[in-house]
Amino acid sequence: MLIVEAAMVCGLIAVVYGLITSRQVLNAPAGNQKMQDIAAAIQEGARAYLGRQYRTIAVVGIIVVAIVWAFLGATSAIGFILGALLSGLTGFIGMNISVKANVRTAEAARTSLQGGLTMAFRSGAVTGMLVAGLGLLSISVFFWYLAGPAGHVPGDPADRTIVNALVALSFGASLISIFARLGGGIFTKAADVGADLVGKVEAGIPEDDPRNPAVIADNVGDNVGDCAGMAADLFETYVVTLGVTMVSIALFMGPGPDTLALMALPLIVGGVCILTSILGTYMVKLGSSGSIMGALYKGFWTSAILAVPAIYAVTHYTLGDMNAVIGGAAQASGADVATHVKAGGDSFTGMDLFWCMMIGLGVTGALVWITEYYTGTNYRPVRSIARASETGHGTNVIQGLAISLEATALPTLVIVVAVIAAYQLAGIIGIAFAATAMLALAGMVVALDAYGPVTDNAGGIAEMAGLDDSVRERTDALDAVGNTTKAVTKGYAIGSAGLAALVLFGAYTTDLREFFPGLAVDFSLSNPYVIVGLLLGALLPYLFGAFGMTAVGRAAGAVVEEVRQQFRDNPGIMEGTSRPNYARTVDLVTRAAIKEMIVPSLLPVLAPVAVYYVIFAVAGQANGFAALGALLLGVIVSGLFVALSMTSGGGAWDNAKKYIEDGHHGGKGSDAHKAAVTGDTVGDPYKDTAGPAVNPMIKITNIVALLLLAALAAH
Amino acid sequence: MLIVEAAMVCGLIAVVYGLITSRQVLNAPAGNQKMQDIAAAIQEGARAYLGRQYRTIAVVGIIVVAIVWAFLGATSAIGFILGALLSGLTGFIGMNISVKANVRTAEAARTSLQGGLTMAFRSGAVTGMLVAGLGLLSISVFFWYLAGPAGHVPGDPADRTIVNALVALSFGASLISIFARLGGGIFTKAADVGADLVGKVEAGIPEDDPRNPAVIADNVGDNVGDCAGMAADLFETYVVTLGVTMVSIALFMGPGPDTLALMALPLIVGGVCILTSILGTYMVKLGSSGSIMGALYKGFWTSAILAVPAIYAVTHYTLGDMNAVIGGAAQASGADVATHVKAGGDSFTGMDLFWCMMIGLGVTGALVWITEYYTGTNYRPVRSIARASETGHGTNVIQGLAISLEATALPTLVIVVAVIAAYQLAGIIGIAFAATAMLALAGMVVALDAYGPVTDNAGGIAEMAGLDDSVRERTDALDAVGNTTKAVTKGYAIGSAGLAALVLFGAYTTDLREFFPGLAVDFSLSNPYVIVGLLLGALLPYLFGAFGMTAVGRAAGAVVEEVRQQFRDNPGIMEGTSRPNYARTVDLVTRAAIKEMIVPSLLPVLAPVAVYYVIFAVAGQANGFAALGALLLGVIVSGLFVALSMTSGGGAWDNAKKYIEDGHHGGKGSDAHKAAVTGDTVGDPYKDTAGPAVNPMIKITNIVALLLLAALAAH
Repeated sequence: MLIVEAAMVCGLIAVVYGLITSRQVLNAPAGNQKMQDIAAAIQEGARAYLGRQYRTIAVVGIIVVAIVWAFLGATSAIGFILGALLSGLTGFIGMNISVKANVRTAEAARTSLQGGLTMAFRSGAVTGMLVAGLGLLSISVFFWYLAGPAGHVPGDPADRTIVNALVALSFGASLISIFARLGGGIFTKAADVGADLVGKVEAGIPEDDPRNPAVIADNVGDNVGDCAGMAADLFETYVVTLGVTMVSIALFMGPGPDTLALMALPLIVGGVCILTSILGTYMVKLGSSGSIMGALYKGFWTSAILAVPAIYAVTHYTLGDMNAVIGGAAQASGADVATHVKAGGDSFTGMDLFWCMMIGLGVTGALVWITEYYTGTNYRPVRSIARASETGHGTNVIQGLAISLEATALPTLVIVVAVIAAYQLAGIIGIAFAATAMLALAGMVVALDAYGPVTDNAGGIAEMAGLDDSVRERTDALDAVGNTTKAVTKGYAIGSAGLAALVLFGAYTTDLREFFPGLAVDFSLSNPYVIVGLLLGALLPYLFGAFGMTAVGRAAGAVVEEVRQQFRDNPGIMEGTSRPNYARTVDLVTRAAIKEMIVPSLLPVLAPVAVYYVIFAVAGQANGFAALGALLLGVIVSGLFVALSMTSGGGAWDNAKKYIEDGHHGGKGSDAHKAAVTGDTVGDPYKDTAGPAVNPMIKITNIVALLLLAALAAH
Repeated sequence: MLIVEAAMVCGLIAVVYGLITSRQVLNAPAGNQKMQDIAAAIQEGARAYLGRQYRTIAVVGIIVVAIVWAFLGATSAIGFILGALLSGLTGFIGMNISVKANVRTAEAARTSLQGGLTMAFRSGAVTGMLVAGLGLLSISVFFWYLAGPAGHVPGDPADRTIVNALVALSFGASLISIFARLGGGIFTKAADVGADLVGKVEAGIPEDDPRNPAVIADNVGDNVGDCAGMAADLFETYVVTLGVTMVSIALFMGPGPDTLALMALPLIVGGVCILTSILGTYMVKLGSSGSIMGALYKGFWTSAILAVPAIYAVTHYTLGDMNAVIGGAAQASGADVATHVKAGGDSFTGMDLFWCMMIGLGVTGALVWITEYYTGTNYRPVRSIARASETGHGTNVIQGLAISLEATALPTLVIVVAVIAAYQLAGIIGIAFAATAMLALAGMVVALDAYGPVTDNAGGIAEMAGLDDSVRERTDALDAVGNTTKAVTKGYAIGSAGLAALVLFGAYTTDLREFFPGLAVDFSLSNPYVIVGLLLGALLPYLFGAFGMTAVGRAAGAVVEEVRQQFRDNPGIMEGTSRPNYARTVDLVTRAAIKEMIVPSLLPVLAPVAVYYVIFAVAGQANGFAALGALLLGVIVSGLFVALSMTSGGGAWDNAKKYIEDGHHGGKGSDAHKAAVTGDTVGDPYKDTAGPAVNPMIKITNIVALLLLAALAAH
């Protein structure tokens, strides 16, 4: 338990780092009165939206708490509440720091690029460290209490409290995050697309022009979608990945001597990687080349490289002998465990686990590089889209779609290689540890992501407050890099979801055998109900994507009409003599986003339950479970591709526009630029609404299935 | 064998019908000299392209023949050659009749709408009946020879000749059709998109204006892509579906008393449905309402409704007692067969099979209706895209993508219900018979599809020859309906592929047990190599789609530059004083399409072999086979969604443009129309290149896996 306590300390350090750094941010000068007024309007809108979103989610949450309590008891209900509250809290903190850092970044960028970078990155680091820190704290404190004072034995098949509680904690985090990702995603892109269409395209005024009544809503969107939604999503990913690793250890290893140590290992790995991430944040400085991406990479690579010896050290400390065989004791109790612990072999060593975690770090590095290749302006994909823009809107979109399809190939191969290698080393538990190591760097990855919307907002404030053009140029330079770092986080989250989902499926099959020992469930591909499950699972991301895209299109249309009406009713707006009614637009987008997020968010919660009961009714309980299991894998197999293609394609479209704006293919205002704006608009809901929300969707489907099993077994 | 001979007679009747009807088409007046000149240019281009395409494919084909011969013997090699030649022949005939019917349709449309409809539909019916007739003839004659004079026993596990030969026949058809679909698809859309971009968008001249140097290439494309490529594709679908049904009967039933009768049943069902389809063609007449879709539907529904008693009659005749239990004898030889023949039960009756075939007809009807809903101008989806065009290019594309994602849901549910119901009735063989019944209507479905490009061409000829506007109006009305019927065929082909792929997978697992009885292959979803296979299989349609989209974008860009250069070098073209060099553009597109089709077409041929050997090397032969099997299902699970979303989405975009051109949302020339043209351009390669080629791709992957197994077993 000493190790768990050490992990708790690391979590606390992250929180303290967050508090100190946020104080530094808040102490920086907040600019002139005009800038502060604008920032205040954004803050007000963001808080109003988030408040309303959380009140709506609370209604769903309370119903779910009641169900969890009724079927799985008080401890699980508390786990659910803890996960849900903290997921909401990280979103709130992320939003709150970014709405204060935006104006300070604009102010700092008046002096220098380094000033703007430092301010924006610090604010991102606050969000990043709080995501990782609160995630680690929640799961380690909860586990410490359950396995310590509450006296539950980890891995005891007769006492499911720890397993159920960890799954319920993950469920709480996931449920909030799907609402936050989708609601925030709809808000941000409806406002963005609507503002662009009516401002840039119709009225011919520049982006972030204060005469555009949707301009505040657009900036609010960056904070509630790209910041709050993203933070809740990554909190979920963190908690679910560490949680499912611990759950799978408990299920596969049973109550052996190594179980507690193994369960503590993901926590302490998360802990030391928080420390290396904090060190990494201090390396984010512009070098002599002035490369912003280079500065951010310095931070990332410092964290990743320091993580190697750190992970080795804590693995050694936790397990003692790195070459001792683990899993022998568990295996002795039955051949069943052995097949799960390691295919073909019988057990694994600490060294095997260390290499699995290195695979996880390698996957993270590879995904970062691949994402930069597909979304960076220096490489073929983005340039091919930019070139295709010369022949019009149509060819821009065709090439963008081609790139979005192509961008799924390398990440899939990386994940496939990682699955094979980790499985060869240490079975399903090896895959779990690879995923854990990926997520261990979450603090740094989130910091890189959360920096983006702050610079985006800073640019907007600079524009609206009429600051010198040099300020906008600096914030634009910072923002362009933000497009790539935002795409990186999404590829990273969905890639880790690919690994985590395999572990979740392993937990599902193990649970099934334990709860229904007499039931022969045929998961073979030659069982047609498995095919049916795969097809229905594969459908979910498509349907979910359709809902998301439609919602953005519909809400953006409403924004266009609202803005047109304001221009009509009040001609003084365009002349610059009277102020548009920003709040009315924010309110409109708020209502639209809340309304549109509910049905698609409930889809992955209800689908597993519906599929199980329908197939049960038609073809018996064993086939019901087979179809449900296949549904879980269908969701991940299809969701991986939908999410990767959408997030990479969207990022590539965005940067193809920026590449043209940098003076290529005719530059700003050329026909190629107009075509590229179309591609960017199409990519917006792809990359910021539908694509990223697939990640929590996959997890929810899997978690609901696990909880359904537990509930069925208990009643 | 009497029944097989009866099926051969039905196939012959279809061929005779095709010859008589094509004579009727050719005897119709071919218009004035100008029209004939234009038609001659189109014919020349189409023949030149097809000749070159077939020469290129022949090189690949000869290599494959040598491999098949070496590993599986002469009979299989002959089967491959037969399938390949006939697939090529149907494509050639389809192209040849449509390049002659186009000008005659234009001429007939000078008099009346009914005249144009009759001429275009007759030409489509020629292609349709030859696809079904030659497909049925090839498979029934080959089977008759093998099981008759050559003396091979159907279902004999010791003599694999019939099974291997039928699979090789399917392989020949599939291999040609993937090249034809993709090469033709790249040609038609590169020319179409290129012509539109440089003509409609840049030069501001109408579609099919003779001053556009790409206009002949565009019209050639309709014939080599939408006609020849489609015909080869549907020939493949027909042969593979009937072939795999017969193969699965041979594998699952063994050499029992019912095997020969059961294997003849798909042939005679195909035969009588050809007869009902021929009757149906005579019902295609405009009613008092003047609805073109109504006229085509009359033909389709007549065929489908007459098929019900016809199928009942031949099933009764073939099997004798409809309630006698089949499969008992096979089952007596081992429990293994029983689990495949019927899950949970032990056998099935003729009545069960009849109901399975009714399910197949029901699926066809449901898919027709769903496709019309998603691509017809009377329903929400197309109208929502049209409405979204009002706010610009971006929202048009967003809404189109949303619809394309959504359009996968209902077809998936229909297929899932059909799989469950047919499996409950008669196991895998029930699913095979459902697929067979779907394909039995292929003659009529192809007729409806092949009619479209003829009317499209007729409109082009009318425009170029300067015929009266009323002619173009009539051909436009015919063409709009063609968009929906073309989408129907694709949904139908991919839906049947979904069913056929399950049967192919069943054949794969059965073969595996037979060839490698000692090898325990774990197809369970908890085997990570199964997951790896699913992921790699799911990747193939994405990669394939990326290749197709990129190819069209690149080739279309080359067309744009070629046309710009012609305009620059010869200013007389735009003034109408000198004739553009049409042939140079046709030649350019020909070379581009041939070059671009090769790599993606080889992807599904090589991927199964590569995956098997790589996983074999890493994790042993059993896991190699497990990963390969999972790859087959991964391709279908992901391919179904990719293909459905692309073909439906593309059709919806196209008709949204047509809906606006009919005077809604501002009509032709409005901003909404411009946005809709962008959507149409994006949809072009979606629906006519990448999407439809997924169907033969799925089949090839499966067939290569079966042949690989047979080759491994033989050596």
